[in-house]
Amino acid sequence: MAAQIIDGKKVADQIKEELKIEIDALRSKGIVPGLAAVLVGDNPASALYVRMKASACEKIGIFSEVIKKDKSSSHDQIQELIVGLNKREDIDGILIQSPLPEGINEPAITVTIHPAKDVDGFHPFNQGLLLAGRPLFEPATPLGIVELLNRSGHNPAGKHVVILGRGLLVGKPLATMLASKTSFTNATVTLCHTGTKDIVSYTRQADIIIAAMGKAGFLTADMVKPGAIVIDVGTNEIADLTHPKGKRVVGDVDFESVKAVAGAISPVPGGVGPMTIAALLSNTVKACKIRRLLKQ
Amino acid sequence: MAAQIIDGKKVADQIKEELKIEIDALRSKGIVPGLAAVLVGDNPASALYVRMKASACEKIGIFSEVIKKDKSSSHDQIQELIVGLNKREDIDGILIQSPLPEGINEPAITVTIHPAKDVDGFHPFNQGLLLAGRPLFEPATPLGIVELLNRSGHNPAGKHVVILGRGLLVGKPLATMLASKTSFTNATVTLCHTGTKDIVSYTRQADIIIAAMGKAGFLTADMVKPGAIVIDVGTNEIADLTHPKGKRVVGDVDFESVKAVAGAISPVPGGVGPMTIAALLSNTVKACKIRRLLKQ
Repeated sequence: MAAQIIDGKKVADQIKEELKIEIDALRSKGIVPGLAAVLVGDNPASALYVRMKASACEKIGIFSEVIKKDKSSSHDQIQELIVGLNKREDIDGILIQSPLPEGINEPAITVTIHPAKDVDGFHPFNQGLLLAGRPLFEPATPLGIVELLNRSGHNPAGKHVVILGRGLLVGKPLATMLASKTSFTNATVTLCHTGTKDIVSYTRQADIIIAAMGKAGFLTADMVKPGAIVIDVGTNEIADLTHPKGKRVVGDVDFESVKAVAGAISPVPGGVGPMTIAALLSNTVKACKIRRLLKQ
Repeated sequence: MAAQIIDGKKVADQIKEELKIEIDALRSKGIVPGLAAVLVGDNPASALYVRMKASACEKIGIFSEVIKKDKSSSHDQIQELIVGLNKREDIDGILIQSPLPEGINEPAITVTIHPAKDVDGFHPFNQGLLLAGRPLFEPATPLGIVELLNRSGHNPAGKHVVILGRGLLVGKPLATMLASKTSFTNATVTLCHTGTKDIVSYTRQADIIIAAMGKAGFLTADMVKPGAIVIDVGTNEIADLTHPKGKRVVGDVDFESVKAVAGAISPVPGGVGPMTIAALLSNTVKACKIRRLLKQ
């Protein structure tokens, strides 16, 4: 039996519709949530991501401001920019598109963002609240994955989740989140990585596999227990001369073989990607409500 | 074959000797590391822990100041006390003995400690640096466990570590630490808890088991793979009329049965307990060196 295809775009659209209702209610009180995205340099992929985020904001009524800075900008210039955004009443969330050019100390910039406007959830203070089990802003991709599992009928509570990859954007925070005692998580979590011996022995046991190691097509059918749920977080560019651009994006999962074994599988593109953007929008609305409604 | 008994006291003594050499060198420059311990109320166990920590400090040349406050102290009074300690040049580390009496907002007190003096590693900023893989102060018990494993010849790199318990003091931070890519960690980590189904199926696979769920004698021989390394973090008081006090402290491991199966096992008392204190001393010396030597 072929796997259920977990449609991340559809679930993300559902979340955006819910957010739009909240935003309309805020707007009726004269409050317009605002997100500032800072783009430094001319990396085409970064520019594309920022455009996608800005466009997603505008579609549901979030004010979006993209601030482009030259790649020769100094660390101090970027830092001053952030300090200014921290003070702006109309900006609820601040987003620094990674990677920053050389010469800019990215961790120092991340710490400059006010934790209450840190909708990416990368400030150490927010990462600490996450580890301490009382999160304010959860990082967008892990939050999107938790939502995707639950809204597609695969609540991870009581399940064995095997995460492949201990990256700071996905694997590590997701492991902490999924092991937490909430009705949407509460999973037994195994975190595998490049230091893991016999990785197949873990993936074959998993009820849910999250592939986030950044290796194109790494997870193959023989590594998956029949009926398991597979979430693909990878976005790897591979050469493909049959495509107009000479390349295409694939996930960490060998989709064609795994879909014949898995119970459900999220595709790339159209799986975790749209959920990451929906989670960012959700965090922005949350930031707006906390900062502006609590003041009133 | 009976298990190796992992002697936490011996390993802790070794660390303290190493620290004493560092402290003597600091003292020869006129720098005396200082730890302030704040004890609120009259919980006898808390008073005992604080005395043990203060005594351990004094033995190796760390200045130790115990500040006792009445249990009727207000939140603001404790907060003011911390603000004062943050400013004191002679105090490198600040320790608030948990639990605090009702009426005091413990998370708010924790946030008041300056992250550079947070030698317990519980400030969200330090917890966040830990999750982000660039720790400043690691919480004492997990740090003590990583040291204990390595110094007793059981480097967890490449091993499957199963942690029982997702507490904020041990399980969760330890899972993040053990999965990190360092030559002392780099383990594949499974985090089990009260929401885990069939917990034996995980413990039976483990090369290393860390029992930190707070259930007296929970881990029994049938749950352990022959030759596995077992670290017992539990400290549970149980009634025992054959003891003068009518009670005694036992771990989360059924020591007598497990030691016949395990390759190595840490006892309670005399295992993780002394290592927790050694790790606290180590963090205090680290705090002193960072704050005072970098200034010069």
